[in-house]
Amino acid sequence: MTKSGEKPWGGRFSEPTNKNVETFTASIHYDKRLYRYDIEGSIAHAKMLAKQGIITESEMTLIVKSLREILKEIEQDRFDFQPGDEDIHMAVEKRLIEKIGDVGGKLHTARSRNDQIALDMRLYLRDEIKTIIRQITALKSAFLETAKAELHTVMPGYTHVQKAQPVLLSHYFLAYWEMLDRDQDRLKDCLKRVNVMPLGACALSGTGLSIDRAYVAKLLKFPKISQNSMDAVSDRDFVAEFIFASSMIIMHLSRYCEDLILWSSDEFAFVEIADSFTTGSSIMPQKKNPDVAELIRGKTGRIYGNLMGILTVLKGLPMTYDRDLQEDKEGLFDTVDTLESCLEILKEMVKNLRFDKAHMLKAASSGYSTATDVAEYLVNKGVPFRQAHGIVGRLVAHCVKVKKPLENLKMDDFRKFYAGFENDIYDYLTAEQSVNLRRLIGGTAKESVSARIKQIESI
Amino acid sequence: MTKSGEKPWGGRFSEPTNKNVETFTASIHYDKRLYRYDIEGSIAHAKMLAKQGIITESEMTLIVKSLREILKEIEQDRFDFQPGDEDIHMAVEKRLIEKIGDVGGKLHTARSRNDQIALDMRLYLRDEIKTIIRQITALKSAFLETAKAELHTVMPGYTHVQKAQPVLLSHYFLAYWEMLDRDQDRLKDCLKRVNVMPLGACALSGTGLSIDRAYVAKLLKFPKISQNSMDAVSDRDFVAEFIFASSMIIMHLSRYCEDLILWSSDEFAFVEIADSFTTGSSIMPQKKNPDVAELIRGKTGRIYGNLMGILTVLKGLPMTYDRDLQEDKEGLFDTVDTLESCLEILKEMVKNLRFDKAHMLKAASSGYSTATDVAEYLVNKGVPFRQAHGIVGRLVAHCVKVKKPLENLKMDDFRKFYAGFENDIYDYLTAEQSVNLRRLIGGTAKESVSARIKQIESI
Amino acid sequence: MTKSGEKPWGGRFSEPTNKNVETFTASIHYDKRLYRYDIEGSIAHAKMLAKQGIITESEMTLIVKSLREILKEIEQDRFDFQPGDEDIHMAVEKRLIEKIGDVGGKLHTARSRNDQIALDMRLYLRDEIKTIIRQITALKSAFLETAKAELHTVMPGYTHVQKAQPVLLSHYFLAYWEMLDRDQDRLKDCLKRVNVMPLGACALSGTGLSIDRAYVAKLLKFPKISQNSMDAVSDRDFVAEFIFASSMIIMHLSRYCEDLILWSSDEFAFVEIADSFTTGSSIMPQKKNPDVAELIRGKTGRIYGNLMGILTVLKGLPMTYDRDLQEDKEGLFDTVDTLESCLEILKEMVKNLRFDKAHMLKAASSGYSTATDVAEYLVNKGVPFRQAHGIVGRLVAHCVKVKKPLENLKMDDFRKFYAGFENDIYDYLTAEQSVNLRRLIGGTAKESVSARIKQIESI
Amino acid sequence: MTKSGEKPWGGRFSEPTNKNVETFTASIHYDKRLYRYDIEGSIAHAKMLAKQGIITESEMTLIVKSLREILKEIEQDRFDFQPGDEDIHMAVEKRLIEKIGDVGGKLHTARSRNDQIALDMRLYLRDEIKTIIRQITALKSAFLETAKAELHTVMPGYTHVQKAQPVLLSHYFLAYWEMLDRDQDRLKDCLKRVNVMPLGACALSGTGLSIDRAYVAKLLKFPKISQNSMDAVSDRDFVAEFIFASSMIIMHLSRYCEDLILWSSDEFAFVEIADSFTTGSSIMPQKKNPDVAELIRGKTGRIYGNLMGILTVLKGLPMTYDRDLQEDKEGLFDTVDTLESCLEILKEMVKNLRFDKAHMLKAASSGYSTATDVAEYLVNKGVPFRQAHGIVGRLVAHCVKVKKPLENLKMDDFRKFYAGFENDIYDYLTAEQSVNLRRLIGGTAKESVSARIKQIESI
Repeated sequence: MTKSGEKPWGGRFSEPTNKNVETFTASIHYDKRLYRYDIEGSIAHAKMLAKQGIITESEMTLIVKSLREILKEIEQDRFDFQPGDEDIHMAVEKRLIEKIGDVGGKLHTARSRNDQIALDMRLYLRDEIKTIIRQITALKSAFLETAKAELHTVMPGYTHVQKAQPVLLSHYFLAYWEMLDRDQDRLKDCLKRVNVMPLGACALSGTGLSIDRAYVAKLLKFPKISQNSMDAVSDRDFVAEFIFASSMIIMHLSRYCEDLILWSSDEFAFVEIADSFTTGSSIMPQKKNPDVAELIRGKTGRIYGNLMGILTVLKGLPMTYDRDLQEDKEGLFDTVDTLESCLEILKEMVKNLRFDKAHMLKAASSGYSTATDVAEYLVNKGVPFRQAHGIVGRLVAHCVKVKKPLENLKMDDFRKFYAGFENDIYDYLTAEQSVNLRRLIGGTAKESVSARIKQIESI
Repeated sequence: MTKSGEKPWGGRFSEPTNKNVETFTASIHYDKRLYRYDIEGSIAHAKMLAKQGIITESEMTLIVKSLREILKEIEQDRFDFQPGDEDIHMAVEKRLIEKIGDVGGKLHTARSRNDQIALDMRLYLRDEIKTIIRQITALKSAFLETAKAELHTVMPGYTHVQKAQPVLLSHYFLAYWEMLDRDQDRLKDCLKRVNVMPLGACALSGTGLSIDRAYVAKLLKFPKISQNSMDAVSDRDFVAEFIFASSMIIMHLSRYCEDLILWSSDEFAFVEIADSFTTGSSIMPQKKNPDVAELIRGKTGRIYGNLMGILTVLKGLPMTYDRDLQEDKEGLFDTVDTLESCLEILKEMVKNLRFDKAHMLKAASSGYSTATDVAEYLVNKGVPFRQAHGIVGRLVAHCVKVKKPLENLKMDDFRKFYAGFENDIYDYLTAEQSVNLRRLIGGTAKESVSARIKQIESI
Repeated sequence: MTKSGEKPWGGRFSEPTNKNVETFTASIHYDKRLYRYDIEGSIAHAKMLAKQGIITESEMTLIVKSLREILKEIEQDRFDFQPGDEDIHMAVEKRLIEKIGDVGGKLHTARSRNDQIALDMRLYLRDEIKTIIRQITALKSAFLETAKAELHTVMPGYTHVQKAQPVLLSHYFLAYWEMLDRDQDRLKDCLKRVNVMPLGACALSGTGLSIDRAYVAKLLKFPKISQNSMDAVSDRDFVAEFIFASSMIIMHLSRYCEDLILWSSDEFAFVEIADSFTTGSSIMPQKKNPDVAELIRGKTGRIYGNLMGILTVLKGLPMTYDRDLQEDKEGLFDTVDTLESCLEILKEMVKNLRFDKAHMLKAASSGYSTATDVAEYLVNKGVPFRQAHGIVGRLVAHCVKVKKPLENLKMDDFRKFYAGFENDIYDYLTAEQSVNLRRLIGGTAKESVSARIKQIESI
Repeated sequence: MTKSGEKPWGGRFSEPTNKNVETFTASIHYDKRLYRYDIEGSIAHAKMLAKQGIITESEMTLIVKSLREILKEIEQDRFDFQPGDEDIHMAVEKRLIEKIGDVGGKLHTARSRNDQIALDMRLYLRDEIKTIIRQITALKSAFLETAKAELHTVMPGYTHVQKAQPVLLSHYFLAYWEMLDRDQDRLKDCLKRVNVMPLGACALSGTGLSIDRAYVAKLLKFPKISQNSMDAVSDRDFVAEFIFASSMIIMHLSRYCEDLILWSSDEFAFVEIADSFTTGSSIMPQKKNPDVAELIRGKTGRIYGNLMGILTVLKGLPMTYDRDLQEDKEGLFDTVDTLESCLEILKEMVKNLRFDKAHMLKAASSGYSTATDVAEYLVNKGVPFRQAHGIVGRLVAHCVKVKKPLENLKMDDFRKFYAGFENDIYDYLTAEQSVNLRRLIGGTAKESVSARIKQIESI
């Protein structure tokens, strides 16, 4: 049992906190990672208190100096965190008072842990979002580089994991570029709502002391100040929104990894992942497994789970701050860590892929993947599309039966299905021809893909 | 069994579709609600085909005229939907061909159901998001009106469902205004990503026919065109993002409803919901239940579930279009319907609340809710906050023991705890005084709240 | 506006229910499907009331007769459901009173909608669980039949979607049999908790009238009676548990469908799904898509979502009954419908698969899938497994380099990697040999698989 | 970079593992907590290998002795875990080989990490489930003790957080007893499916060496052996099922905590939580917050999230083992830790509650909570229930208007609403009378509650 007198909030209490309760309610073991932001916020707060005459300049100087020392202690691993510290705020304040006595007790003036933690988390997340945006830029670059390198590689495009139409490998990579680009937009939108200064809301209603919130915002480089103190302490929307944005990112990565897993199978054999990015089996000597891709795909569950976690916490929570909100942090930290490590490793892995271009082209050329082109050929000859579709359907059924690719059919064969076929049909039957026909905006012709690459590079 | 020849895609098939498969794969029973958007998109597509010379002007005129007739047939409930129609696209095309024969078969030129459904959903969701933004504006207005009407009503502010500090009822309602305002911002951000034109992506790779995507975008008022055909057909990010934005909205409503349920209990007794917005019990004659608030709170589950549903569908889905994506629609429709009905009913209910102001003030005045003000009073007298907190903590513990409110203490009593108390302490002990002290930005003083109201009204 | 007098619970109310509120709170449009169970429960309740002398025998006879007529009206689609009916209970009671006047008003004695809906749902779910258990039995049979038919088909077993070791196709199907068998066990366990009689709990505390709960349980064939009235009306555990059991089932189906989608790709080409179980493309004439498998996989999202929905509803719900609980039904119904249709269609589809056995064997024979057998061969020669693994790893790396399968190596080649190789190594190199070595319990040798089939058939 | 030769599976690899990949794929930092089970399983495996003559008796003795030393090293914190160790299996094997050389390399014979991790997790979870079952028994006892102590305490029973009917506090606590009892049943059912021996499945297809799985099962006290090797390595159903069972438990706790939070508010004031189980505010000196209850309620999000996480991982996973499955562990561990700490702390807290019985009775007596009794009184007088409900509804509306409780009405007042009221109506108007009328099975009368307590104690 701790002596109740030791708790900074213990005045009203006649019994000390139960030891198990202390452990159960403590967050210090995970929120200590916010130390940098906690101290940064406290320094700005102290400066404001001095500017407003609530503490003296020399008190402020002492407090700020000591906070900086504490920062160093933590960074140099000389700070002794205790479970009884409850949380990072109390740990720092306790140390401050140890160092400078009663003056340290002035720092928490016009502040509550309710607005302090909101501040810490916003400072932290603001930084991490910027980091993740940078990481996505790097991954987009890796995809773009691949797209530029593979402008001549024709592969089968799939729908339903069935060969559909030939596309450029470049085009495929640019599709993921687009997804990641949306992901960045979502993060930027999220950042607008993260980047709001809550300090001054205190417990829930503000303070009667004459503080200057705008000054704190300026010191901490916040473009906006929260406009309602009750909302400021009970709002965790920004946590949920970030975890959702992260869910979308990991979902996109999971889709890419799914493709990569398939493509590196013996059956597809489109790509070989470098040995250094695969692992082996403890029992099967021949195995080379795409573990990294599988793990990223699997980690989707973790981030989705974190999203469901925070949403569950927030559901039906009465106003304003409730202790349930402490459960916002571990899921957030885990999401940040997971995402950052996945983005980093994937970027490296993408650079370590070797595509089997010849095999991809061969695959693109099989499976009657130019059948749509034949139908469009007929449209150009005036056949209504729906009829053209029917004619080519029967043509393909015939080819399947006789086990011939379309390009091996003789003109007579073609004409059995539609009399209007002419010699120029042979310009529509290969995968390369098919790709090059698609010159529209967003299409897969080299021309279109190059245009898009240029456009991207000029942004 | 249907004859295989009847399927518009049946050319390659030697067996007809199994009847159960037909039913199992059909989406017509729910996607028919997209009919308006499907036809609107088809009209724009037909106009473009004519402009590009892929069909003739007169073919286009005939197609457009007939599509408008079909629209009327559906709106007047004269259209005969069949399970065998598969989906809204096929239902409309089939009817078109019934009406105008082979020319109808030209409409699907340079188009696939893959890009068509993406278009329909974006057109639909664009409209619904605008509707929901308008509804939120209306709900915000209802909250703002209440805030304006209750500028003199003092209530207890809660943390941990424990009385914390007095606040204005206005301030409380403005907190929800802020949440809803963020919700609108999120919807507007989402709308940017919804409002992108996918048509022309066809199955996945575009078309070899010379279409004009920009023209279609102009006709349908899309500010942007999707820049990658593979992405265009496999992207359902916008569905997930919308359902997430909706999850945040319903979460906010669930928090408000939780408060309302508590407040309308006998124990809180802060508010009476009008009879017309409550329901009774089939067995207990005295009951008057806040069912509407409970149902809204409960409907959070449904929307969270829809979010988890679409995220699950998208996880690990290989490129590009897979039939799994058909599972995007029912959850989306349910989310839209749920949200719109909750926003509508809640707006009405808020107007039908009667607050018991006297009781709220009394509640705000009890529970030592001005203790923080006493601590800040001491700070103003030069006591470090942490010590002030301790002094007041002991003071409150004493009051609890002798069952007295703070304002009933004599000066002598105060001085037992700290010698520096003076007569002006009595200016800090009532709920009204406490509220009025908090004049900071985002604070609860009438001055601050009025300022925020003015600011909001001037936006 | 309805006249308030019309509501069966309207006595205490001075204002009629708002029309929108009536619509918003109504559940009749979906809970009407419980009609059969509602009436069945009412008949048992009426019989009990008569047995206990709370109503007379002739009143009971009249009530029961009329309830049976109402049942018929509904089944013959002659019953006029109105939104103003609120729910199935009120709809039936209203009709009963229409038919037989005041006597009808006696049915709701010693009953509340709170216990009545709990009863209806338990009766309903009890039936559906039994149906689903039967459907799983049928699907297990389909898998077992395939396993029996494919006892000689060797396929590559995969880990990480990389060829690992050869297995029998039978063995693969029996793996799914095991999963489904666990699913049935879970449903049976769930059924124990569904099959409990709640009637008599009334609103929450039971009744002062002398009812006989055991008699009702006997009439309705419930083996157990709920032992706490407060729990009885607020318990929806059985709904969540059923939806979880369903989540596991659909997850298993999603895994099977994932395999099937891969296997029916051109690249794997292990299986052809009958035309009647696939669909085509509206644009690509050559396509034959495994839509049914994709849709089942996609429907996983829906059931997971329903699970998250009910769990969200229940989180933090105060005792006892809250209207939030009305949100338990649509997700449950959707889960039942989805699951039943997936189980039905999958069973049929499995019977319509044609395996390419020669191709499977060829695939199983490539990719060095017998490398583990070589390592175990060395273990039998006394080499520690870890060293054996290393030797074979180098051997395979060599083969990859020279592009040779293991069985094409000469004895000299083998001995370059380990001197102790002897001629009997050639008994360990083919896929068939590999399979037949694995004669342990649960192993893939024909002997083991046959034994398991026999065991299953003897259950 | 590690030298590839150092990896136990490195034979086939020409490049060393990328350092980041090593970190990214490692699970040693969390799966090391399985060390005890890993070693226990290895000992049994070694004994079996010796029994079957695959290793010698003296090799076995050496291996077993060394494994026991390693166990001690880990328990005494003398074991040097390295990230490069990958996982607990490799860490132990590496140390074993360090200690005893090549003989150590024989342990992994006829085993793969795929079946080994399945074994470890089942051994671990089997133990934890038993622990949790015991903890629930303890919490049930705490609830039962409270129920026994409060057999005379009448409280208002709530529906919709509105006073409904009086109940005994005992009855309330027994309701939670029932929920927890179901939770235990679910865990026991889950345990049946956890308690199955997977070893021998090896990578996926078993082994060609003649092992004895039944002997291993006997040594490790498993009642069942997995019957299909492919299923054995890809099955994580038991993890999902356990996390679901945990979701139900934490959901029940969240409901109890919600009640407790409300009840300890000033407004309800039914209960005071001991100081040692609450915490204070860093700013508001008067606060005493039910943090423990709030945190437990909040932790629901975490466990729901873990459930969604594992379900997402498993969705659509192809057969058999995929590396995604590594993502099963952290969520499981977190669920176990969370649940065990919540059960422990809640049990203690329940013992530290002080109920304000007088206040509860007073609350139970207000709000017309005996209205249903009056209706049932009328039923006993022959009034059809539906009419009786209407009469009492109007009676209550009158009382609300004149602000009188039912028991203060005069006989004349009663008779204005129904002529048949007689003097015995006054036996139905108090909360105690209401409670005592409900003598049915599962009812709230002291008689019924006592009977249930006796029944529980006799189990």
